[in-house]
Order: sequence, then structure tokens, then C-alpha cells
Amino acid sequence: MSSESGNENCLGWAARDPSGILSPYKFNRRSLRSDDVSLEITHCGICYADYIWTRNKHGDSKYPLVPGHEIVGFVKEVGSDVKSFKVGDRVGVGTYVNSCRKCSSCEDWEEVNCEKQTFTYNAVDEDGTITKGGYSSHIVVRERYCYKIPDDYPLEFAAPLLCAGITVYSPMMRHKMNQPGKSLGVIGLGGLGHMAVKFGKAFGLKVTVFSTSISKKEEALTDLGADNFFISSDHDQMKAMVKMLDFIIDTASGDHPFDPYMSLLKPNGVFVLVGFPSEVKFSPASLNIGKKTISGSLTGGTRETQEMLHFCAANKVYPKIELVPIQYANEALERLAKRDVKYRFVIDVKNSLK
Amino acid sequence: MSSESGNENCLGWAARDPSGILSPYKFNRRSLRSDDVSLEITHCGICYADYIWTRNKHGDSKYPLVPGHEIVGFVKEVGSDVKSFKVGDRVGVGTYVNSCRKCSSCEDWEEVNCEKQTFTYNAVDEDGTITKGGYSSHIVVRERYCYKIPDDYPLEFAAPLLCAGITVYSPMMRHKMNQPGKSLGVIGLGGLGHMAVKFGKAFGLKVTVFSTSISKKEEALTDLGADNFFISSDHDQMKAMVKMLDFIIDTASGDHPFDPYMSLLKPNGVFVLVGFPSEVKFSPASLNIGKKTISGSLTGGTRETQEMLHFCAANKVYPKIELVPIQYANEALERLAKRDVKYRFVIDVKNSLK
Repeated sequence: MSSESGNENCLGWAARDPSGILSPYKFNRRSLRSDDVSLEITHCGICYADYIWTRNKHGDSKYPLVPGHEIVGFVKEVGSDVKSFKVGDRVGVGTYVNSCRKCSSCEDWEEVNCEKQTFTYNAVDEDGTITKGGYSSHIVVRERYCYKIPDDYPLEFAAPLLCAGITVYSPMMRHKMNQPGKSLGVIGLGGLGHMAVKFGKAFGLKVTVFSTSISKKEEALTDLGADNFFISSDHDQMKAMVKMLDFIIDTASGDHPFDPYMSLLKPNGVFVLVGFPSEVKFSPASLNIGKKTISGSLTGGTRETQEMLHFCAANKVYPKIELVPIQYANEALERLAKRDVKYRFVIDVKNSLK
Repeated sequence: MSSESGNENCLGWAARDPSGILSPYKFNRRSLRSDDVSLEITHCGICYADYIWTRNKHGDSKYPLVPGHEIVGFVKEVGSDVKSFKVGDRVGVGTYVNSCRKCSSCEDWEEVNCEKQTFTYNAVDEDGTITKGGYSSHIVVRERYCYKIPDDYPLEFAAPLLCAGITVYSPMMRHKMNQPGKSLGVIGLGGLGHMAVKFGKAFGLKVTVFSTSISKKEEALTDLGADNFFISSDHDQMKAMVKMLDFIIDTASGDHPFDPYMSLLKPNGVFVLVGFPSEVKFSPASLNIGKKTISGSLTGGTRETQEMLHFCAANKVYPKIELVPIQYANEALERLAKRDVKYRFVIDVKNSLK
């Protein structure tokens, strides 16, 4: 990795150490290969992952670290073999920028399951450099890992779809949670949870939100359109919901018991975990009686990510965001850690990164 | 419950207290209702549940307790409205003898998920009596909960299908584990596990057995036809299997870690739990990375139980059994608790209960 010499072609904001504090940082993006797309970044969502890796919470952070994997912008240059994009196209990049393209997961367009999946930042790229994310002026990404943003879909709303959106859309589709009239429980109402509510309503589901924070009740019911809102520590409310739900999607990042939620599922009910609590623990009876299922998920493959973008445009599914300048990124990360955001920060890169 | 007066119409063997020791016991079966079938019992399988309830391990045993829920025999009488059975038919009864017949689970022939499912023994029947199982000369059961045993299928082999068989067949079908060429791991090689191996081979799967007992290796490979046999404490063998399996069915009754087995699954792999360890605990990464699923199961609904019986007859799937007289039941239960059986005891009721 080069140190800053003044000739770098990209301006970003990077964390330099586990304090996680971001500051301007110049670095070089690679020249275009034949199958690369270069995009001028207009917006980048702020994901909880950015908090984790800027602060080295997993012990594997590589500094200087430029976070951001909810990236949108305009194509400014394409390699000679690029077929799907042309200069000026509206384009997005999500949580990974490469995979082996040979394994059965890649063949099935399930690149998120590829062992050689390369994350958009803090990963070792195939040329040995460390990938750098979307808190930056531009990015160069292989065509396969870029998405078309539908014409009528605002770019700032598209950004959070590329991690938060696909993370809940993918398991909801895989587990057939798109059957109108069925009932969905959503645990946690952050970036992921509020998208689960929005997808749930777009699918025609009856949506119940479980949250620890009463402050989100009014907005959940009125703005997001949830049908019910329960405080998860309220045992009477929880009891009233026993065997009432077809599906639950658990977006909570913190630890919580699983058995009480499993009891809310009908027979054959499905519980999807997309968070990373410290452990998952429950009684086998919670699973066996009623033949229930717990399933995990990360983000999604390239094909379903593109499909989700089209679904959101066609069904007018828009995240709720707070648009902030890059200069606010440090404060935004601190507020995100305190769950003080409704519901996703998006950095206005184009208008603030200078 | 009547005490023994000498006029009882049924002879069974019952446990009288938590010692679990069985001894002859006379009691009355009800007279036939219009939709009842009365069957003369020829054989009854010995399930681990019989050990648990004769010994009051769950604290809810009602003595005298006549165990047995893998019941086969001949129809000796039918009620006036019975349509599917006639005197002389070969017939079976499994783990439950009643359900509400009105809820959505019952409407879907998934009576095993009905809240009012009545277990074949030790349950309160709709007339207030305590149900009594198949360690007895005859049983009276509502037609809906009786199964036809295919003509060419030996009765003694049919008995274990009605709990052990359906317990593994049902989740294997539900999770599409019947795709030829895919790979199945079977944890535990008892009554359930050996049936999972047999179904796996009948479905055309590559079957790997994980057991704690090397003594079962030879028979697993030669008699049951498993493709691989691993001792689960052998870390090198386990490592060699990482990401090699499409499915795992866990029939182990004792506690064991889950993460090592989850690591053996390919992306989108499914782990089915049919046992009751004291708890299920794993890292969320075991579930999220590779989008894996854990699902629970009990036995099956009436329709799929009948379907399984036909499948076993058509595909010559036979349990391996040790046929024993009723007088051996106490010793058999003790041996079962020590896992000293290959692989299911079946009581030769007709020839020994006198």
C-alpha cells in the first residue's frame, strides 16, 4: 500500500487506528482492467459493519481503513470488455467486489457463499492490495459485482439497499416470506429491521415489530406501516402472540433469548437470523414441537441483489434515511452504535467530499 | 381407571412405578365407537420413549403405564362407519391416536402438529381415561389414526416404521433430502439413525455415519450400506468432511456440540434435529455463513406416515430388528438405554403375551 505522496487518484476518509476516527486520506485506485467499471461515488450508506471494522472489533482491521459497502454513483469509465454498463449509468456496489466465479455458489449466482468472496473493504484483493470502501470519491469494480440502479429510483435511497436491503430480502425470498396474508415478526428496528417491515408490507404480510425501544412505536406504525408494535420485555404482549406468526426475521445485533420468540411461531414456522449475537441457544423442544426452522443469512448473490433493486423500484420501497455530509461520519458512527438513527445514515459523498 | 377385577378385556404389561419394571396387567379397552377399529396386536416396537416414560423421566408418568407406540396387527372388528379397514386387514398404529380434526394442522393431515394430539400411551383420552400402548393384546383406535400395512411387508418390520421410521422420513422429505447424488450425514446409529441410513440409500444419497461407537462401523458399511463411517471424536476425520455434506440428520439423544457438525455442511445446507438434547447451542456464524438451516421434527402426519409405509414396501426398506418375547421387555429396555441393540427391539406380542 502506498503512503500518501500527493499523486493519488482517490480521496477517501479512513480510520488510522482502533480509535476508529475517520479523517481525509488519499490513495490510489487501480487502473481499469478490461472487465472493470469505474464509478464516481455520489452516496454511501453507513452500516454497523463500518463501526465494527473501523474500531477493530474483530481484531482483523487493516489500517488505513476506508469503510463503506453501500455504494452508489455514476459510471465514469468502463473497460473494453464491459457489456452491461456505459458511461453515465447509475450504478451500485454492495458488500463484495470479487469471488472465484468458478465454484458451484458462483455458478448459481450465489457469490455471497463463495469461499473466495472479497469484501468491499478491509479484504486482500487479488492483486494483493487491501480493498477500500465507499467513503471515497471513486471505486473500480469488476462488472459482475456492479448493479444497475433503476432509472426512477433516487440514488440516496438505493445505497442502503445494497447491504441492509438485500440482507433481509434474500432470506425472505428464500423462505417464501412473500405470501400475502401471512404474518411476519421483525425483531429490532434499525437499518435492517425497518427494511424488513417495508418488504413485509410490500409482500402483503401482516407485520409485527418487536423492539426494546418504545420511542420507535409511533413511527413504526404510522410511517413504516407495521400492523403491531410490541416491547419484547412485555411478557403479557408476548404471550398474546404465541403461535401467531408464520415467520420471524431477527435483525437484533445484541444478545437475547430465543425460546420466547420461537414460541410465537405457528407449526412449520421459520425464524431467520441475520444478526450476530454472541451465541444462539434454545431448547430442542422449541424447534421439534411444531417442526420449526431456524435459518441464517448474510447478504445475497448478484442476481438476487439486482432483482431486489428492481422490486424496490417497481413497488416504491424506499428506506428511511438521514442524509449527512462526510464530515459528519464520525458522529454518525457514534450515534449508530447507540441506535440513534432512523433508520440509515447515508453520506452525501458527491456534495461533501472535497 | 379401573383396578383389576378379573373381567378386563385386555392383557398388557405395565410399569407400576418409576422403577419402570414391567409386569402383566389386565385392563379394559373401550367398546367400539362407530369410527373405531379394534386390532389384535401381533408386534410392538420398543422405542426410547418407552424407557423415558416407564421411568417417569419427564415427571408426568401415569401408572399403571402400558408403553408401546409402534404397533401392528390385524383388524378384528370395525365400527359401523369405518370405510378404510375390514376385519383381517393388516394395520398399524403409531405415536398418536387422536387429534382435534378441525385445526389447520389437522386439515393439512399434519396431525402431529395439532395441539390436541393424543399420544398413544400415558395421555388423557377424550373420555378421560389414560391411553395405553401396544405392550398389550389389543387396542381400539379411531380409523383416521390407523395405517394399512402393505400386503407384502412383514408385520414385525413394519412396527419400527411407525415411530423411528416416520421420525426420520418426515423431515427428510420436507427438506428435500431425497435428491439422488446428494450427500447425507447421519449422527447416531440407533433405531432412528439406522433408518435414516436406509432411507438415504433408498433415495440414492451418499451416506456418512457419525457415531461414538466403533463397534457399529462394520455393520454400518456392510449391512446398512453406508458409504462412510466416522468416529465423531476424531477431529482429523471431521476436518476432512468440512463443507462436504448437503444434509445432516441428528438422531443422537445425548448432548454434543453443534458447531463442528454445522461446519460439515455445504452452503445452503440443512441440519435436522430429531433428538432431544438438553439444549441446542451454536455460534451464529455457523448458521449465517453459508446460509444454513437447522430444523426440528417429531414424527409425521397420517398421510405421510401411510406414504412412508408404501415407500418402504415399494423400495424394500426394512429396519434391522431383534425380535423378543414380551417376557424380555424389561431386559430390552435396559439394553436400549445402554444403546446395546442393533437396531430396534420388536416384541413378538402374539406369540408371547399370554
